[in-house]
Amino acid sequence: MARETLERPRFRHVGRPVDRIDATAKVTGQTVYGDDLRLPRLLHVKLVHAPVAHARIRRIGASKALAVPGVEAVLTAADLPPHRTNPDARAQVLLASDEVLFYGQPVAAVLARDPYTAAYARDLVEVEYEELPAVVDPLEAMRDDAPLARTGAIRDADRSEEQGHITVEAQQEQAQSHPSNVSSSITFRRGDVEAGFAEADAVVEGTWRSSMVHQSYIEPHVIIADYDASGELSIWSSTQAPFHVRHEVARTLGLPEARVRVTATEVGGGFGGKIYLYEPLVAALAMAVRRPVKLTMSRREDMLAATPAPQAVVQLKAGMKADGTLVALQARVIYDAGAFPGAPVLPGCLLIGGSYKCPNLDIQGFEVLTNKVSVGALRAPGAPHVAFALESAMDMLAQRLELDPLEVRLKNAVEKGDPLPSGQPYPAIGLKECLEAIARTDIWRERRRIRQHPHRGVGLAVGGWLGGLQPASATVGLNADGTINVTVGAADITGTNTSFAQIAAEELNLPLEMVSVVTGDTRTAPYAGMSAGSKTTYTVGRAVKLAAEDARQQILAIASQRLEVPAEELEMQDGVVRARGQPEKQVTFRELGRLTTGFGARYAPIVGRGAITARRQAPGFTAQVAEVEVDPDTGQVTVLRYAVAQDVGFAINPKSVEGQMQGGAAQGLGIALFEEMVYDEKGRLLNPNLLDYRLPTARDVPPIEAIIVEVPSEEGPYGARIVGEPSIVPGPAAVANAVADAVGARVFEAPLTPERVLRALGKLRD
Amino acid sequence: MARETLERPRFRHVGRPVDRIDATAKVTGQTVYGDDLRLPRLLHVKLVHAPVAHARIRRIGASKALAVPGVEAVLTAADLPPHRTNPDARAQVLLASDEVLFYGQPVAAVLARDPYTAAYARDLVEVEYEELPAVVDPLEAMRDDAPLARTGAIRDADRSEEQGHITVEAQQEQAQSHPSNVSSSITFRRGDVEAGFAEADAVVEGTWRSSMVHQSYIEPHVIIADYDASGELSIWSSTQAPFHVRHEVARTLGLPEARVRVTATEVGGGFGGKIYLYEPLVAALAMAVRRPVKLTMSRREDMLAATPAPQAVVQLKAGMKADGTLVALQARVIYDAGAFPGAPVLPGCLLIGGSYKCPNLDIQGFEVLTNKVSVGALRAPGAPHVAFALESAMDMLAQRLELDPLEVRLKNAVEKGDPLPSGQPYPAIGLKECLEAIARTDIWRERRRIRQHPHRGVGLAVGGWLGGLQPASATVGLNADGTINVTVGAADITGTNTSFAQIAAEELNLPLEMVSVVTGDTRTAPYAGMSAGSKTTYTVGRAVKLAAEDARQQILAIASQRLEVPAEELEMQDGVVRARGQPEKQVTFRELGRLTTGFGARYAPIVGRGAITARRQAPGFTAQVAEVEVDPDTGQVTVLRYAVAQDVGFAINPKSVEGQMQGGAAQGLGIALFEEMVYDEKGRLLNPNLLDYRLPTARDVPPIEAIIVEVPSEEGPYGARIVGEPSIVPGPAAVANAVADAVGARVFEAPLTPERVLRALGKLRD
Repeated sequence: MARETLERPRFRHVGRPVDRIDATAKVTGQTVYGDDLRLPRLLHVKLVHAPVAHARIRRIGASKALAVPGVEAVLTAADLPPHRTNPDARAQVLLASDEVLFYGQPVAAVLARDPYTAAYARDLVEVEYEELPAVVDPLEAMRDDAPLARTGAIRDADRSEEQGHITVEAQQEQAQSHPSNVSSSITFRRGDVEAGFAEADAVVEGTWRSSMVHQSYIEPHVIIADYDASGELSIWSSTQAPFHVRHEVARTLGLPEARVRVTATEVGGGFGGKIYLYEPLVAALAMAVRRPVKLTMSRREDMLAATPAPQAVVQLKAGMKADGTLVALQARVIYDAGAFPGAPVLPGCLLIGGSYKCPNLDIQGFEVLTNKVSVGALRAPGAPHVAFALESAMDMLAQRLELDPLEVRLKNAVEKGDPLPSGQPYPAIGLKECLEAIARTDIWRERRRIRQHPHRGVGLAVGGWLGGLQPASATVGLNADGTINVTVGAADITGTNTSFAQIAAEELNLPLEMVSVVTGDTRTAPYAGMSAGSKTTYTVGRAVKLAAEDARQQILAIASQRLEVPAEELEMQDGVVRARGQPEKQVTFRELGRLTTGFGARYAPIVGRGAITARRQAPGFTAQVAEVEVDPDTGQVTVLRYAVAQDVGFAINPKSVEGQMQGGAAQGLGIALFEEMVYDEKGRLLNPNLLDYRLPTARDVPPIEAIIVEVPSEEGPYGARIVGEPSIVPGPAAVANAVADAVGARVFEAPLTPERVLRALGKLRD
Repeated sequence: MARETLERPRFRHVGRPVDRIDATAKVTGQTVYGDDLRLPRLLHVKLVHAPVAHARIRRIGASKALAVPGVEAVLTAADLPPHRTNPDARAQVLLASDEVLFYGQPVAAVLARDPYTAAYARDLVEVEYEELPAVVDPLEAMRDDAPLARTGAIRDADRSEEQGHITVEAQQEQAQSHPSNVSSSITFRRGDVEAGFAEADAVVEGTWRSSMVHQSYIEPHVIIADYDASGELSIWSSTQAPFHVRHEVARTLGLPEARVRVTATEVGGGFGGKIYLYEPLVAALAMAVRRPVKLTMSRREDMLAATPAPQAVVQLKAGMKADGTLVALQARVIYDAGAFPGAPVLPGCLLIGGSYKCPNLDIQGFEVLTNKVSVGALRAPGAPHVAFALESAMDMLAQRLELDPLEVRLKNAVEKGDPLPSGQPYPAIGLKECLEAIARTDIWRERRRIRQHPHRGVGLAVGGWLGGLQPASATVGLNADGTINVTVGAADITGTNTSFAQIAAEELNLPLEMVSVVTGDTRTAPYAGMSAGSKTTYTVGRAVKLAAEDARQQILAIASQRLEVPAEELEMQDGVVRARGQPEKQVTFRELGRLTTGFGARYAPIVGRGAITARRQAPGFTAQVAEVEVDPDTGQVTVLRYAVAQDVGFAINPKSVEGQMQGGAAQGLGIALFEEMVYDEKGRLLNPNLLDYRLPTARDVPPIEAIIVEVPSEEGPYGARIVGEPSIVPGPAAVANAVADAVGARVFEAPLTPERVLRALGKLRD
């Protein structure tokens, strides 16, 4: 780990690497996950997944399943309690009632005393389907003569997940009046793109395809719901977004949010794929049977029917002048949303035109419906797809103009004040600094020597993410023994609670051991937005800092009374408040704890509060470089070395930041080289398991050098900016550029499987 | 239900009867209690209870128990992790290591995969005891030649439970230097008691005995503890005092409070008996075996080894002038603490000398150790015992002087400004108002007619409780849909959360359905004191009111910005904020919810905060009247009618207040007539079950008329004062006075069993 840091004040805790507070429990297997939870009278549910991609349901026969001992109920859409059903919102279509829209869509629920009985009985549920023509490929789906993926036009698409990840003011054009598989489109234009191409000295173009990939969290979805006789709905879910789940479930089922308690159980990996999905269904089942109900998905069920990341086709044309100035970009960005709207068209279009200064832009984005499972977020949703195209094109231009690919990027890289395609100007960002850091890596400096090897090469790519914005709050309390409790509402998916402990310990000048951070449920925790959009530390961290400062003031006020010294003349360290220059005048946090909690205590309890709203984004950029070797006979690509430079503003916990950078880069290598959900022409998923769906393993991922770049954000705590998402973005492009550098062949489709590499080498033909 | 209320402002919610928000779930059996909880890898513990009252442990042999399949461990004191052991604090003596001090004391713990296996194996643990002389009767224990109940003097008695119930500044004289069974004593003197008796026209004296009784909650103690590899200790306990459990467990086991999470599971009855007891032991077991451990006590185990209410002997002499003026009180108040200090000597002494104005006082209190189970709190701990003596004596004096017993009490009743024996003056109290209310009851007005029946009579008594003081805090949040969440840290044992919902709805002028109140665990909830000492509504209610007012200000500030109207010109009703006189200028809570939680929201979340400390008590008094019939042949006493007038300051939820008054009175009738833990001369409990320990049933308790008296307290929310405890106090005295009124025989020992009544009637001799 290296760090490129501006000069800044020295801190005691923030900025220093610490182990995650939950690390030991996790690595020793003691952490309690959602599937570990039990409730009295619990029923287990298994869903009946449609074996066809597009069909009408003619009949559902439950008698054989109901005859199985231990089966308590088989419910279809008609058996669920009244609820809001927006046909355009995947999570509100609890069970398919008439039209099946994708292979794997749930059409019925079998509830039994144990999951094995439920799974056995599921196979006995008889469903008659009338098959309808399925449309599987997004480009075919866009044709005028394509069959429609669903009956009726899209009117009320649910884009909340996208907004959680990226919050900008640009508006998508939604829902046309006539039925079409194009459910939304968006256009950004700037300057005159034709004039731009005319003045360019080099123009390249191509069509880049990215495959559908799955978030592949270790823990599949787990949800428990319990609706009691007093009308209180409790939900335990391995969600990244407890307050969002509460909001959506309450809205869907017509309950006040005050009556819904969502507990985010430990998330065994989310990556954007665990926002909310089956919570309304499981809650509706619990309401229907008046017993607690648990859904634990198997790997197969999760791959069939959760929300993977979309397939995309990016048609890009780019023009550059001989001096390396980018002058025109024209793009058609097509995301396959699957059966429900929700594809990341907006961020894709913003990023393809927002990574480099370019006077002439013409960007069109399309969201296309097909009869495949609907998509969700996966770490910087939509961004790797467009970076694959854009960063490949940048290398092609540099090569055509015989320019250094890093210099070309540096010349055009966006900086503070440069506009996004939407016109919104960038705040302080660190793309250039990341490129400069990559220029100093061994891989980059050794690239000429590496290239002397006949099958090795070095490739560079950049990528970024704008980040989501949601308000946040936190409280900080002083315990009776002088230790400190921090309470937040954000699910901790990346070690954020450890960072919050650092922040509170910093503000109160305490040893880290004196601080504990916990994520409450939605009825006890102060509100926080979803843990998505890389915004948790950026937003909740600020709230924690304010809450700790508030607690500090309250502590000083009491100490001032006790010691009869003005608060300004007090200092606190390690749980002791002292009068400056009068060390005998002191009071400990432990005494203050007793004075604010004990019998007949003189003072009210310390309740520090922080509440913020975040109105300015703090986008994060990364530059990455890969050294690869290509086997010219098999087409296999091996990544030998990899380096990631990422601007994180300020690394509150560099250890955790480094982990995010390496983890994201590893995921980027997965989508670059291996991961692909394969559908047949009838829309059936052929590889819903981790044998046939290939994830990168420890043997595939080289040591990843992480270089932390710190260009402070304007609003983040201590200058921190978004961290989690950018690192996944450049992988496919960096690998494709390295492959091109190594063997001269450019691959336009990710993952870069051996066949595709061989095809690019001209060694394999259709 | 009647209500005697001063003129006061009209409210929308507070002061109106509402159903408890948890009522339906409870009566339909859906409420989840501690015993319903399951954890993975859970072990169940059964304790080995000593079958002798006083002994040395010679040897503990576990081999036979360990041979039982499913038994995972048999642990003794020596096997527990290092911890603080104060031999004077019952809960810190996790397992007896050397000296057994009471029959039923735990000496070893058997941990097994299920409770049945643990119970079976428990009987196979071989313990060799060397019996020591046991002292059982408190008066005998006070003799100089009595055997000592335990080795060594008391040095560091734990009186936190008493302080939770009654917080006053008087100090007990603790711990003598030489070993004795008298572990503490206290003296209050005022005036010249001998001179007082000299000027009295009537002097009565007697010795009143009260039996040891059990809280007899429906749910015995349930505790689960889990200590994970990251050093986080989680405890689920049916405790009334989660923060107190956290404090004591952390202190005992040497953990920072920030690392201890205590969740108060639904309390299935507590009455003071569920503060804390076995939590440190269960936590230590979980730390020793590194697995979650659950203790669910059986009824027998709970009666043997929880903390019942003490036996007491009260020697009282009282003198009155012919005009009814009380002139002298001399009392010796002896509480049997059992094997550990912690008896309610202080409140007993304060109340026996603090119910009536009396210029000459001589009150001595003694806490005596015996080899019986140590005692805990039971609703107004210590108070019924002294009221039994004092209120009997008041009737005896009235009879001797041929005065009306109600008039005599009214003449002498304490009022605002009168001193307690400690000198502390009373704040506003309503004892006189309660007596006046009782004077208007049918029972009292019909007493002459009733007395014409040869075996019927009417008896009156009063009683009170001073109340505990602890600080409290609460938060109030606005949800995305405009509903309101209130979070508190106090366990809801009497419906307090329903009252808090009323308070928040009142302050925010909302329908009650829009407000939800939840008790968080000690890591998510704002601090609150124990739910004991009748102080929960009095203290936490104030914090909720402040938090709601704070939320109200935050809401108005945002609405003011949105509507461009000064906050002072806004009004809120039913979730809408409007400009006064401009109804078109309005914004709903739902919109404000979205504006403070949504993506890119303009405003920070609403986090209303209230934190208070309570420095002034708000004592509660009650007057009660009983109509009884005595069977002169069997001695059986039947209560025909009963009325309770109680000053509650302001009844926030009259339905719940009435329930508290009736429930407490029913418990008072139980200790008056039936309840008694019977020990043999060797200190063995003879009736540890609910067949031989007689509780009052629905057939024994007549309809109880509840008259709510409202003399506002100075500090309580809307004038509310303490409610829960006073109602239990007068029962034994009221019944004894009624029996004397009916058949002319005075009984000096509670419960007034048929034998004791026959003995008083001279129909039965020793």
